[in-house]
Amino acid sequence: MSDPMDYASSGVDIDLEGAAVASLIGSLQRSTRKPGTPGAPVDLPGGFGGLIEFGNHLLALATDGVGSKLQIATAVSNWDSVGIDCMAMNVNDLLCVGAEPIAFVDYIAVPKPDPEVHAAVGASLAKACELANVTLAGGETASLPGIVTELDLSGTALGFLDKDSAITGERLKSGDVLIGLPSSGIHSNGFSLVRSIINRIGLTYTDSCPFNPAFTGRAFGENATLADVLLIPTKIYCAPVIGLLKHLKESLGSVHAVHGIAHITGGGLSNLLRLHDQLGWHIDSPMPIPPEFTWLQVEGNVTDVEMHRTFNMGLGMVLAVEQEHAESILSFVQQFEATAAIIGHVNDHGHKVTHVNSEIFYKHY
Amino acid sequence: MSDPMDYASSGVDIDLEGAAVASLIGSLQRSTRKPGTPGAPVDLPGGFGGLIEFGNHLLALATDGVGSKLQIATAVSNWDSVGIDCMAMNVNDLLCVGAEPIAFVDYIAVPKPDPEVHAAVGASLAKACELANVTLAGGETASLPGIVTELDLSGTALGFLDKDSAITGERLKSGDVLIGLPSSGIHSNGFSLVRSIINRIGLTYTDSCPFNPAFTGRAFGENATLADVLLIPTKIYCAPVIGLLKHLKESLGSVHAVHGIAHITGGGLSNLLRLHDQLGWHIDSPMPIPPEFTWLQVEGNVTDVEMHRTFNMGLGMVLAVEQEHAESILSFVQQFEATAAIIGHVNDHGHKVTHVNSEIFYKHY
Repeated sequence: MSDPMDYASSGVDIDLEGAAVASLIGSLQRSTRKPGTPGAPVDLPGGFGGLIEFGNHLLALATDGVGSKLQIATAVSNWDSVGIDCMAMNVNDLLCVGAEPIAFVDYIAVPKPDPEVHAAVGASLAKACELANVTLAGGETASLPGIVTELDLSGTALGFLDKDSAITGERLKSGDVLIGLPSSGIHSNGFSLVRSIINRIGLTYTDSCPFNPAFTGRAFGENATLADVLLIPTKIYCAPVIGLLKHLKESLGSVHAVHGIAHITGGGLSNLLRLHDQLGWHIDSPMPIPPEFTWLQVEGNVTDVEMHRTFNMGLGMVLAVEQEHAESILSFVQQFEATAAIIGHVNDHGHKVTHVNSEIFYKHY
Repeated sequence: MSDPMDYASSGVDIDLEGAAVASLIGSLQRSTRKPGTPGAPVDLPGGFGGLIEFGNHLLALATDGVGSKLQIATAVSNWDSVGIDCMAMNVNDLLCVGAEPIAFVDYIAVPKPDPEVHAAVGASLAKACELANVTLAGGETASLPGIVTELDLSGTALGFLDKDSAITGERLKSGDVLIGLPSSGIHSNGFSLVRSIINRIGLTYTDSCPFNPAFTGRAFGENATLADVLLIPTKIYCAPVIGLLKHLKESLGSVHAVHGIAHITGGGLSNLLRLHDQLGWHIDSPMPIPPEFTWLQVEGNVTDVEMHRTFNMGLGMVLAVEQEHAESILSFVQQFEATAAIIGHVNDHGHKVTHVNSEIFYKHY
C-alpha cells in the first residue's frame, strides 16, 4: 500500500495560511463609517464579517477565487466551467447569511491576454450569472507576466437581505434538523491533494476516466476523461436557498425556521463548527459519495477523517432547520435538488462533529 | 541618444488586451435580473457599466488590481503602500460616476503565505480604508504556488448614489471648465514602461534616487531611494469628490454642476475622450509635472505624446464643471487639494484632446 496522503502533504500549509490571515486581520481596525450610515459594519453573532448597513437592508460582499482547480482547466485548455466555480464559491458564501446575490465582478490575471481563453472564460461567467441570477457588473483583466505564470480567476459577489432576516446561527438549538444539498462533485476545494494524488500515480488529466464516473444527475459518455470529472462545475445553490427563504417569508412571515446554513468548502464537515460555539453536529445519514472521492481515497490512501475534512464528499450545503418545519422545507428544496435529504441533527453533546462512521470526528475547523 | 521607448515596447500589447476584453464582453449577455428589482443593470449614457438598481439608489462595483507596481514593492520588500494603491484604483473609478465608496474587499494571491508580508499588506489596507472612508468587508488570501510566482493584490469596492445623482457626461457642453486634482506621483499605471526604462539603464530600486524627488506635498529626506519615489501611494480622491458632491447637493440642490469626472489612469489624458463621444478637450494650463516623469522621459527617450498617454503627468483626476460654478467648486476642492487648478476647457472642435504643447494630441483612447 502506498504512503498515506493528506492535505498538508500536498503542499498546503494550513497553519501558515492561518498565521498569515491572522496577521492580516490583526492589522485591521474598526471602520470609519459610523453606525446608522451606509457602509457601517454589522457584527452578527455568527461572526460572518462581510455585512454592512444600507438603510433597511444589509449588504454583503464575498470574495474568493477558483484556486488550483484552475491548473487543471489550464492543463487541458478547458475553461468552460471555471466561471461557474468562481461564481459558486462566492454566491454560496453569501447564501449562508441569508443574502440574495445580485451582482458579480470578476478579476482575471494572465501572463499574456489570449482572446480565445477570454471568450471561453466569458462564456462560463455568463452561464454562471444566469445560474446565480446575478448581474455581471464589471471585471478586470490584468496582464501580469512577472507575477502569474498561468490564468488566475477570482471574483466578488454582492448580496442583500432585510435587516431582520440575517441567518446567524444564534437560533440554533439541539434537535434542529440538518438538510443536506448534494454537491456536483469535488467543487473547488482540495485540488492540491487531488493533483498530488494524480501526479503520484502518473495519470494525466486527458486520460480516460479510470473509474466509472456515473452518479445521480450526471450524463457522462463512455469517453469521459479524468479532467471531465474533475472539472464538473461547483453547484450554485441560489435557486433552492433564495427560493426557500422567500417561500418561508411568505408562508411563515420570516426566514427564521432556518437556523443556520453552511457551505461545505475547504475544511469539509468541520465547517459546521463555525456556526455555533457550543452545539454539536451528528451526521447519521450521509449523502451518497460521488465515485471520484472513493477513487481518490483509495489511490491516495487517505483516511476517512482526512477525506471529510478536505472534500465535500457529496454534501455541498447544509441547512439547519427547526424540527417542526423540516419535512416541509425538505419538500420545498427537493423541487430544486431532488436528492436533498435529512442527514443528521444538532445536539448538545459538546462542540464537535460526529458521524455514523465513528472515525469521522472534528473538534476544530 | 538611446532608442526611444514606449508602452508597447515595454511588453504590454494593448491591442491584444483590447481583443481579449472584447472577447470576454462578447460572451456576455443581458442580466436575468428584471428592471425595477434589486441588482437590475442600469445603462447610463456615459457607458459606465457597473451600476445596478437598488430601490431609490444605485449601487456600483469597481474591481481592479495594483498591477506590475507590485513587482517593485516585492523587489524591495515594502508593502506599505500597495493596499492604498489597490483601494485608490477602485474607489477613484467609483467616484467618476458620482458613487460614494462604502465598502471594500481584497484578494491576495501568493505562492506561499508569509505572515510578515500579510501584516504589512493588512496595515496598508487598513490605512487605505481610513483614507477612503470605507469598511473592509472581507478578503481572501489564496496560496497558488502553481499560478503566481509573487504576490498579486486586487480588490473590489462598493459604492452607492441616489438614483438621480449619477454623473454620466450627458450634461457636458462646450465651455465647461476642467478642474485638475494633482496626482501624488506615478500612481499605479505605466509600471511596465517604468520597469523597462530602469532595467535598461541598469539601476536597481534600492539605489539612491538619481534625481531630486522634491515636489509639492512631499517630505523626502536626502536618503530617498528610487523605490521610495516609485512606490508613493496612489492618491485617493474620496474626500474632495464626495465632499464636493454633498456640498453641491446642499447648496444647489443637486450634483449636476459637475458634468463629468475622469480618473486619469492607463491611457493618460486620452481617458477624457471616454466621457463624451463628440466634444473636445483642451488643456491650456497643465498641472506641474512631478520630477520622476521628467526623469523617466529623458532616460527612456519617450515622446511627449507617449508620456501623456501612459502616465498621469501630475494630473490624477479631472472634474468637468459648469462654468458658472467653476470658481466656487475650485475653492471647495482646494480645501482638500491645495494645488487643484483650472487646467482647460471642453470645446466643440471635434472629439479630441488637445494641449498647450501641440505634440500632445489624442483622437483615440
